[in-house]
Amino acid sequence: MNKKIHMYILSDSAGETASKLAQATMAQYDQSDLEIQLIKRTFIYEKSDLLDALKEAKELEAIVLQTLISEELVKISNEYCQKHNLFTIDALSPLVNEVNRRTDIEPSRVPGALHFLNENYFERINAMEFAVKYDDGKDPRGFLEADILLLGVSRTSKTPLSLFLANKNLKVANLPLIPEAHIPPQIWEVDPKKIVGLTNDPKILNAIREERMRSYGLRPNTAYSDIEKIREELKFADDLYKKIGCLIINVAQKSIEETASIILSELGLEDHSYFR
Amino acid sequence: MNKKIHMYILSDSAGETASKLAQATMAQYDQSDLEIQLIKRTFIYEKSDLLDALKEAKELEAIVLQTLISEELVKISNEYCQKHNLFTIDALSPLVNEVNRRTDIEPSRVPGALHFLNENYFERINAMEFAVKYDDGKDPRGFLEADILLLGVSRTSKTPLSLFLANKNLKVANLPLIPEAHIPPQIWEVDPKKIVGLTNDPKILNAIREERMRSYGLRPNTAYSDIEKIREELKFADDLYKKIGCLIINVAQKSIEETASIILSELGLEDHSYFR
Repeated sequence: MNKKIHMYILSDSAGETASKLAQATMAQYDQSDLEIQLIKRTFIYEKSDLLDALKEAKELEAIVLQTLISEELVKISNEYCQKHNLFTIDALSPLVNEVNRRTDIEPSRVPGALHFLNENYFERINAMEFAVKYDDGKDPRGFLEADILLLGVSRTSKTPLSLFLANKNLKVANLPLIPEAHIPPQIWEVDPKKIVGLTNDPKILNAIREERMRSYGLRPNTAYSDIEKIREELKFADDLYKKIGCLIINVAQKSIEETASIILSELGLEDHSYFR
Repeated sequence: MNKKIHMYILSDSAGETASKLAQATMAQYDQSDLEIQLIKRTFIYEKSDLLDALKEAKELEAIVLQTLISEELVKISNEYCQKHNLFTIDALSPLVNEVNRRTDIEPSRVPGALHFLNENYFERINAMEFAVKYDDGKDPRGFLEADILLLGVSRTSKTPLSLFLANKNLKVANLPLIPEAHIPPQIWEVDPKKIVGLTNDPKILNAIREERMRSYGLRPNTAYSDIEKIREELKFADDLYKKIGCLIINVAQKSIEETASIILSELGLEDHSYFR
């Protein structure tokens, strides 16, 4: 018995805040029990576009999730939903109104102010380009410019972690560790407080690497996935981390978000993505 | 007269949903008028950790923004805030409870269910690694595997756009267009409905490129930033886009989020990041 409900996201920007909220809710359900269909109507600036979207939502008896900032549009949406008995969540207004009440400073009410093409925004883009440029040890000169240098053997999430942290405006370089390979001398010039050594459980690495081999259409039990070889690699990495004196994180069973959160907290860094 | 308020984020996961909400609010204010200090207490599983965080929030008379999913923790937090007269927003419960009410299906109440190391999660990681691997036309063989192929002259946001879309579980390759350079033959094998041609206004490109030259410590008026040269490049790109018959987007004055939103809607793709 697969049930289905519709969720309408109404936003005067890209609808990311509401999407996060919807995703957090959807993650609470198994898709085989409940299908939540998300429909986004974003960059709504006109009253007529808003009313069109609300009518669509009404036809589907959808849950309306809105993050509009224009007082006029919020009012129209709330009135429509009340009149037509549509369940709505106005996610942004309570928080903005409380800040306004406490400080007596009016919010700008500019839609999508989060994406203003301002200095902070360009810093984030630079951080992303930095992560791509200095991924996979491509150019060790990036180590000295980086806010964070990630070290790790293969399959310890270096790339996605670098990109996730780049989204927080942090410049991240990463270096894969292979016992046979040359360690760039720049590593010893970097402040150890900026370095993170990533490690993993040998059995998990073994399973991941066997799977990777299979996806390449190769035999799973190669040197790459050999457990003794993996233990050697991890030992090599661990010895290097201790010599550097850096933070060590075992990423086994941790999501990127969780590992990133530990890094920020342990290195005393903040999420810079929201400063204007 | 710089005013300051504190905002406490309490989450049993990485606190991303609440952070988005806080950021959308902060973006409504100018930092020179109002400083909003964001303090995160994430991965809260224990009652004692929650109470510690609430006490800290009370000392600062902070706004409490919570996205806890455990009914017990939500109850403790709400009761504490009511008793101690702390303003709180319970961002997740109204939506989860409404879905529950409509469907009669209980949410899993597993904290941070969004970051389960499930298939969808690994797909996202693969998409990120794909974007890095096939960035900047590095390997045209990726074009045929990609969900989206982005074409564009220098400084049309190809890299950040690829990464942003990778976060939505889409495999994106990109190719920089330079009139003198060879166009990989693979481009003609890709379905034009998967290709996006990015363009920009010549004057904006000129300003961006002059700035880039300055940041490299070079003279700003090089061939790279010459306006006639830029017009030629844009004409070359435009001719190619028309020959391919692909979607063309002018990214001038558009944020990455906005451009990504247009791409998804025009190519008929969905944000796949929330499917489990």
